[in-house]
Amino acid sequence: MKKIILLISLCLLAACHDSPKISKGKPKVKSAKYGIVIHGGAGYITKSGLSDSLQEAYHQKLEEAIKRGHLVLENGGTAMEAVQKSINILENSPLFNAGKGGVLNANGEVEMDASIMNGENKNAGAVAGVQRIKNPINLARDIMINSPHVMLSGTGAEAFAIDQGYDLLDKSYFITAKSQRALEAVQKRQSSKISKVDATFIQNRKFGTVGCVALDQDGNLAAGTSTGGMTNKKWGRIGDSPVIGAGTYANNETCAISATGHGEYFIRNVVAYDISAMMAYKGISLKQAAQQVIQKKLAALGGEGGIIGIDQKGNMVAEFNTPGMFRAQMNSKSEIKIEMFGKGVD
Amino acid sequence: MKKIILLISLCLLAACHDSPKISKGKPKVKSAKYGIVIHGGAGYITKSGLSDSLQEAYHQKLEEAIKRGHLVLENGGTAMEAVQKSINILENSPLFNAGKGGVLNANGEVEMDASIMNGENKNAGAVAGVQRIKNPINLARDIMINSPHVMLSGTGAEAFAIDQGYDLLDKSYFITAKSQRALEAVQKRQSSKISKVDATFIQNRKFGTVGCVALDQDGNLAAGTSTGGMTNKKWGRIGDSPVIGAGTYANNETCAISATGHGEYFIRNVVAYDISAMMAYKGISLKQAAQQVIQKKLAALGGEGGIIGIDQKGNMVAEFNTPGMFRAQMNSKSEIKIEMFGKGVD
Repeated sequence: MKKIILLISLCLLAACHDSPKISKGKPKVKSAKYGIVIHGGAGYITKSGLSDSLQEAYHQKLEEAIKRGHLVLENGGTAMEAVQKSINILENSPLFNAGKGGVLNANGEVEMDASIMNGENKNAGAVAGVQRIKNPINLARDIMINSPHVMLSGTGAEAFAIDQGYDLLDKSYFITAKSQRALEAVQKRQSSKISKVDATFIQNRKFGTVGCVALDQDGNLAAGTSTGGMTNKKWGRIGDSPVIGAGTYANNETCAISATGHGEYFIRNVVAYDISAMMAYKGISLKQAAQQVIQKKLAALGGEGGIIGIDQKGNMVAEFNTPGMFRAQMNSKSEIKIEMFGKGVD
Repeated sequence: MKKIILLISLCLLAACHDSPKISKGKPKVKSAKYGIVIHGGAGYITKSGLSDSLQEAYHQKLEEAIKRGHLVLENGGTAMEAVQKSINILENSPLFNAGKGGVLNANGEVEMDASIMNGENKNAGAVAGVQRIKNPINLARDIMINSPHVMLSGTGAEAFAIDQGYDLLDKSYFITAKSQRALEAVQKRQSSKISKVDATFIQNRKFGTVGCVALDQDGNLAAGTSTGGMTNKKWGRIGDSPVIGAGTYANNETCAISATGHGEYFIRNVVAYDISAMMAYKGISLKQAAQQVIQKKLAALGGEGGIIGIDQKGNMVAEFNTPGMFRAQMNSKSEIKIEMFGKGVD
């Protein structure tokens, strides 16, 4: 009898020793209810404004990205990995404002931000103002895992990347004819007044940030966002994408959110976390919280954009107050939805 | 009669034209219930660890700073101005980790962050990683007022400062013998492992960030935070101080908050906004919300530090889970409280 007690005690000790830092809310049984949502930016995306061939190109790339992340989940992989893999495909495509094809700052260079958050333990990583990292979302994840920090910026972040074995690319890799034309167009329209630049940006630009949220079979949530920022930006501007709570948030007890839009309003409204807080403190659904934040609170300040989200039960949402939003979602039954215009994706 | 109607109509039109962008909740009658709270950092601040003369020096500087902001409020000035003026005194003192006397990064230079938020309209400004700005809180305010952005960083932020007429100081202005000794001590203890650096930082450093929250006679709230970051920091690390929602938040409908502590945990917990969200969505008091966030949620993840806060009614709070926190508060009756150790300032 004593031996049995000793054995049980030893097993318990071993279990305690090996337990992860925080595993609250992680079910041990694999769940059938997994799912994934991606976005490629919200803005003035209309049928008349996009040629058929361009619509087809966006459709194909969104399909490729959502299926890549879904495959990770289907095979029992983590939400974190699904988020990273889906975003990598969008970062590598010149169609979206992230990674290659990111918009150009006032110096004609890309300046990228990204962040990622793990809902299982609320760990997070973020990077701001990097110029030579092929996939900023990967660097955000490495900052989370391999540094004691959440957010690194600029050449310092690139020095960390070198420490981690990253190859720094030539800045020309990121530049496309499209992003050069966009910069020239904005600079031509630019008057000396800052407010005019801002107005031009708001009226003419798609907010082409990309993002992904996922729920895996272990019941863990994750969210990630990656962006090239805004055309003709100056002064080392940091938008909402690398700001945990504004552009990205994940918490197993509520939801995972990735935002896209006019970043300044998303920072001031703490948009991503606000949706989580409404669910936690008011007991409302993801859909209700997303509608209140995007259609009421954000709109009241004049903030334009949208979010994608997924909750612990696999409910998915894409909520935006702009004419369109590049988006796709896929559930555990492999039902897929890819949309660009109008409202009501969920 | 027609003339009177016309006159009234014209007056109404004029009133509409001159109204501020957003004035929701702004009472027209001056309120007697104004107040101000400041902090100079939380951490391992103990009686035995501080000489009598150093205690006296901290006491005097906290008194000078709180009285400066209080004078603004007493004279009917704005909460924004009070926050800025109080923080300027702390930034200019080498006693605190902000402005002059800010801790040194791995290159032996200061690298400062700051943010400010106006609760009246939820406008905000933030600056990260500046090295030659005497008062980063002033630049944060100018970013809020004179740029379309919320957050600027690094040399880009300094370029904006030059546009605004700022003099950039020589980096040597910020360096003190104390900050040099601290850097040398940390670098000596440093092994090659990142976690050791982090552990040293947590165990031995005061989190000397400074901050201020205020309620003015018009019923408007404001919050600001300014910091030199952490000794021996590398890689362009950005902490919670310039992150709206994490280190700073203000909203006339709830409260104004400034945080200090181990920034990474404050970002992951969206600390400043979380207190506001609990008040708004759960209907609990500032004190209850601050206690839950700092003593329970933050502590559960192992996050150390504290916050100061003030609500719309002038209730003031200083909540921290470290041995001490440099802090002071002053109400509309000019009752003043200056403390460093223990708990229960409010």
